[in-house]
Amino acid sequence: MTKYYILFLLFSCTTLLSAQRPSLTLTKEGITKIKSGLKTAPLFEKELLQIQKEIDLAILKGIDVPIPKDMAGGYTHQQHKVNYNLMHKAGNLYQFTGNEKYASFVKEMLFAYAEMYPSLGLHPTMKSYATGKIFWQCLNDANWLVFTSQAYDCIYDFLSASEREKLEIDLFIPFANFLSEENPKFFNRIHNHSTWANAAVGLMALAMNNDTLLHKALYGLEDDGINPDEIDNDGGYIKKDGIRQTGFLAQLDYSFSPEGYFSEGPYYQRYAIFPFLVFSHALHNKRPDLKIFEYRNGILKKATNTLLQLTDPQGKFFAINDSQKGMTYKAFEIVMAVDLMYLIDNSQVQLLEWAAKQNKVAFNIAGFYVAQKLETMNLSEPVKESRVYGDGVNGDKGGISVLRIDDAELLFKFSTHGMGHGHFDRLSYSFYNDAGEVLQDYGAVRWVNVDQKAGGRYLPENKTFGKQTIAHNTATINMGSQYKAKVKNAEVVDPVMYYFDADQENIKVVSAIENNAYANVNQHRTMMLYKDAEFSQPLILDLFTIESKEGVNIDLPLWYTGHLMKTSFTCGKNLSSLSPLGEKDGYQHIWQEGTCSVNEDYFAFNWFGNNRFYTQHSASHAGDKVVMGRAGANDPNFNLRSDPVMIHRKLNTKEAIFFNVLEAHGTYSKTTEIPKDPYSSIENVKVIHSDKDYIICAFSNQDYTWEVLFARTDNNSNSIHEVSVGAKNYRWNGIYQITKLKK
Amino acid sequence: MTKYYILFLLFSCTTLLSAQRPSLTLTKEGITKIKSGLKTAPLFEKELLQIQKEIDLAILKGIDVPIPKDMAGGYTHQQHKVNYNLMHKAGNLYQFTGNEKYASFVKEMLFAYAEMYPSLGLHPTMKSYATGKIFWQCLNDANWLVFTSQAYDCIYDFLSASEREKLEIDLFIPFANFLSEENPKFFNRIHNHSTWANAAVGLMALAMNNDTLLHKALYGLEDDGINPDEIDNDGGYIKKDGIRQTGFLAQLDYSFSPEGYFSEGPYYQRYAIFPFLVFSHALHNKRPDLKIFEYRNGILKKATNTLLQLTDPQGKFFAINDSQKGMTYKAFEIVMAVDLMYLIDNSQVQLLEWAAKQNKVAFNIAGFYVAQKLETMNLSEPVKESRVYGDGVNGDKGGISVLRIDDAELLFKFSTHGMGHGHFDRLSYSFYNDAGEVLQDYGAVRWVNVDQKAGGRYLPENKTFGKQTIAHNTATINMGSQYKAKVKNAEVVDPVMYYFDADQENIKVVSAIENNAYANVNQHRTMMLYKDAEFSQPLILDLFTIESKEGVNIDLPLWYTGHLMKTSFTCGKNLSSLSPLGEKDGYQHIWQEGTCSVNEDYFAFNWFGNNRFYTQHSASHAGDKVVMGRAGANDPNFNLRSDPVMIHRKLNTKEAIFFNVLEAHGTYSKTTEIPKDPYSSIENVKVIHSDKDYIICAFSNQDYTWEVLFARTDNNSNSIHEVSVGAKNYRWNGIYQITKLKK
Repeated sequence: MTKYYILFLLFSCTTLLSAQRPSLTLTKEGITKIKSGLKTAPLFEKELLQIQKEIDLAILKGIDVPIPKDMAGGYTHQQHKVNYNLMHKAGNLYQFTGNEKYASFVKEMLFAYAEMYPSLGLHPTMKSYATGKIFWQCLNDANWLVFTSQAYDCIYDFLSASEREKLEIDLFIPFANFLSEENPKFFNRIHNHSTWANAAVGLMALAMNNDTLLHKALYGLEDDGINPDEIDNDGGYIKKDGIRQTGFLAQLDYSFSPEGYFSEGPYYQRYAIFPFLVFSHALHNKRPDLKIFEYRNGILKKATNTLLQLTDPQGKFFAINDSQKGMTYKAFEIVMAVDLMYLIDNSQVQLLEWAAKQNKVAFNIAGFYVAQKLETMNLSEPVKESRVYGDGVNGDKGGISVLRIDDAELLFKFSTHGMGHGHFDRLSYSFYNDAGEVLQDYGAVRWVNVDQKAGGRYLPENKTFGKQTIAHNTATINMGSQYKAKVKNAEVVDPVMYYFDADQENIKVVSAIENNAYANVNQHRTMMLYKDAEFSQPLILDLFTIESKEGVNIDLPLWYTGHLMKTSFTCGKNLSSLSPLGEKDGYQHIWQEGTCSVNEDYFAFNWFGNNRFYTQHSASHAGDKVVMGRAGANDPNFNLRSDPVMIHRKLNTKEAIFFNVLEAHGTYSKTTEIPKDPYSSIENVKVIHSDKDYIICAFSNQDYTWEVLFARTDNNSNSIHEVSVGAKNYRWNGIYQITKLKK
Repeated sequence: MTKYYILFLLFSCTTLLSAQRPSLTLTKEGITKIKSGLKTAPLFEKELLQIQKEIDLAILKGIDVPIPKDMAGGYTHQQHKVNYNLMHKAGNLYQFTGNEKYASFVKEMLFAYAEMYPSLGLHPTMKSYATGKIFWQCLNDANWLVFTSQAYDCIYDFLSASEREKLEIDLFIPFANFLSEENPKFFNRIHNHSTWANAAVGLMALAMNNDTLLHKALYGLEDDGINPDEIDNDGGYIKKDGIRQTGFLAQLDYSFSPEGYFSEGPYYQRYAIFPFLVFSHALHNKRPDLKIFEYRNGILKKATNTLLQLTDPQGKFFAINDSQKGMTYKAFEIVMAVDLMYLIDNSQVQLLEWAAKQNKVAFNIAGFYVAQKLETMNLSEPVKESRVYGDGVNGDKGGISVLRIDDAELLFKFSTHGMGHGHFDRLSYSFYNDAGEVLQDYGAVRWVNVDQKAGGRYLPENKTFGKQTIAHNTATINMGSQYKAKVKNAEVVDPVMYYFDADQENIKVVSAIENNAYANVNQHRTMMLYKDAEFSQPLILDLFTIESKEGVNIDLPLWYTGHLMKTSFTCGKNLSSLSPLGEKDGYQHIWQEGTCSVNEDYFAFNWFGNNRFYTQHSASHAGDKVVMGRAGANDPNFNLRSDPVMIHRKLNTKEAIFFNVLEAHGTYSKTTEIPKDPYSSIENVKVIHSDKDYIICAFSNQDYTWEVLFARTDNNSNSIHEVSVGAKNYRWNGIYQITKLKK
């Protein structure tokens, strides 16, 4: 009885509001503002004129709705993708200009789809855990519906009642049912795929005023009958333990940490934010009672800002997990997100600052509003902070951290696994500056949408190399990946943050512990970005301890970007034959270019990349090796990049202490041919002392020694520590201290 | 008697003019203009303020004239380099500002050198054919003198007569004698080294009014006693057959072709142009009677303009021969050249256009003049032409050619060997567009001035790989380099230009013959850049015939830049072991990633680089192979880049016809993730007919076939040709014709 009452309320509510069209991401009121204010928003006007040109051309070219056949990258795939974009733009244009030719174009295309759709079975490729009808996967069908629902809303009043009835009965309702009831594994998960599904069905429900569908979109299917062991194409589990709520609101509850971090990482967050925001925008207009942008303390606002913070100095998203490298804050999803969130809360001036850098606005009321504001405001560069972002719904399941000083940006990862798109890379880091990538995360082995490379899908080497531990700047034990490379194992338990401090101007610190990736192995890594007047650029201090009950072999790679210049140890490259470094867990994909012995207590590795010189200085131990490698072995289809790696190897070790100091110290221009500081000024690094509670390390240049004092087991900032090493007494307050001593 | 008379004339002439200081590249008159007009030349003023800041800082830091010890890149090398630059700048500053602290600084430093110089033996490194005293090679000592002579000229009047005497007797005269009489192999060649030597001695002679030295600089040493078989460190011969004149004027006579091409290539031309122009500038001021800028029909003007034309779309010099890649028209030598040649002849507006792109001016009167002009003129982009530049003193010893349409730029090389810096790469080409290098010339294996890499000198792999034929986009016969990789062999005989035509708007053609690189092998290659409405970008048509008395194995590499996407043939990459492609002539440095059979008559190779897609379509023959390779084998010190190559291999062939069509057809952005035209629209290429006089080839897309008709033995543009193939009759006028036929 209560249920019916709620449905009735919903119905009357939407009915009342739906009298005016458009009603989703555009409103009558917004259209009026745009029409009268075009000249005050030149960036928006430019966008409009460009789109008008594009659509006028498309109208001349005529409509093409082919029978679905191809994989991503292929002709029918691309054409249907083009079509939903054209419909969306033409629908908006009809509203902005009043010119009926745009409405006719949308109508005609919709009818072509309505003609074809009832006869379609599943897409013939059958390569997805959730095969679509228009596309090879339901995900792309959901993309189609997100855009098309908005187009339909725009021309709703242009259509007759019987035309609308035909479209809804032959196309939209079956389409929405297919994505929901007929594909529960796709619709009823906590996952970016399901966010698209929920938003697609929800947007079309709002467009049609169909409350039954809207209820499904918001709250999910009641009984989906999914087996908890089922996995998707990326190896992610359909069901997540302990999560039983589904639908759009549950996505908002469970997709983000309280600070707006998305466990799949920023590349996928960029993809998911779009349906989150578009549907929320429509709900904001049509269901203001839901207060969607206030939901979970404004989680969408936080998610948008977090995303912008997770970019490197060149604006590329940190390429953790399954990321295609090179995706930036200029992606259309981020343009839309920035504009919309500024429209919703114009106290967020930083969003306007990002919008200025994007130099492009969304083709909607938010874009118009931002374009107007950009004309009147005097803006700075947006501030990028050193921060830690807790992972997990409560923010307590590890996290990721960005340390920033000047143009140096370090990303340290100790998050949850990241579902099907996660990599086995806990305690890994990557490093960037204005000149680009310095220490890379390989990213995904994939060319998104590029037909030549397996139709744009993930390539086999993504699983066998890209996801494996050795492909990342973190330790691999006994040549095997963390959690035996099983998602199920990795999802059970999370790293623990030990310490984070970004309050000092010249030093930023993050420290985390991972004791479950390998049986009986405890790992604790602390990374610092440290600025001192003796060095032109901030140093990276990397203190990594690994304790094991049994003696283990440890490989700690440095995936550097550039060309090896010089090593402090002798290391010849294999001359006339190369073989892979191992047989499994990613090692089979690395050519072994050389394996060399290093000095007992210290070695240095100097390279040149992005027109800068870098040197990593490392404490070492008798018997340590360095392996030089290069990706590309066991790669039958030439899918891997030929990237170099230097691996610090410790054999049969129970207690390993890695202490590395990385200095970016010089530059070289191919035009002036002048090398500036090609050598690091650091002369030595060493571990002075270690016991179960403390580590004392040091590094020095010609004039100074820096001692790094660290409490391994007490992360109370108020504790006082005291250690005696020989005659010398060290005393400090809190987790760590760096002491600079004149020699 | 005549000789003395001339000397007397010279003497009186210089004495008359030398009354006023400065007198070399600066003049009293120029200084007056600069002082009064600073505000009218903001780019020059900016330069001045920046340099003033730099010198003020250097003065605070104090003078450091260390005992010479290090190789290039090392401390003493860098410091002495810094010193001559500081002296030059400080000398100019003294003139521009009148502030005596700058003169004192130069004076003090000069005296420090005068103190040290008499006690110096040869530089301890002893690694050069002409070891210097301040530096490891005389060449750098000459650099020092070129800059220092100008500094001396600037403070000449600031010094007392006795101070001048001390400097001249203890430092300048012995320095100049060391570079000339004591190093005839260095001073008395036709080579960029000797140009520096001649200019250095000549500039100091002018500064000192020393006519004996000036005569040596202009006309060389009379008897140098050099053995004609002696070679320098780069493997070049000291003596060139048939050339017996030496000195600066002989450099002008013999270094350039009549069009201003320099046989070592643009990278070295950029280096050599500096002493050519600086000394000429001083001669222009102090010896106007020589009319140096009119010498040899204005050869220096031509050389400057040719140099600017030999840049790719990103402004980098084409990296032929021993070039360090990345050197651009923004190099300080080119800034100076552009400014000076515009000062000398301001009808050359294109130079001002280049100056605008450089956005920097020289620190002299020419830079001042250009900075003034830039304020008043409305400038376009400089025009870059399709042209051929004849090589050799008379322009008849082969040449190089640049074909340009839109942003496509193709460099085809059929020049003389290029002396010690030449590569065995006749009939090779490289290809560029706005996005960068598409088909590369590897360039030199060297990091200039980078101490870590053998003190910045050429690395061993430059000789064993960089110079070898297989490292270039031209044919290698029987896995051996052209001319058995002997400079002496290659210098004897030159390629012959068969045809060049850049008059058509949509097609640019160059064709050349090389019949001496291999015994009994005739090679003829024709390259066309062809624009047609069916293709978004110009095609490269490459027709390469190789005839041999004996059956030979031929390798034709394509050093592509980017990542392999797809091949029309099956070609798996070697999975678990790599070995080198051969044992010598560069093959020992290429890892063999795979060797595959191609289809009998056609194959295609598709790759992605610089955000664009490319496909090469090739006619093939039964038994042809494709080898996939990657540089980096037998490279003990990690000196080589890991660059990929695709090699078309023909075995045991007496008559090979390569016909390749390269299409740049699509784009892909990592931010939009939208591939546009990832596949080429060309469906087939084939050789329809060949006989001793004619070749008929064709390629086609879905709608058209293009026939390429070519006369191999008659390069008369007026000839009419007729060939019957089966029932079909082909008739055309001139060397070639492209016929477009609707299918």
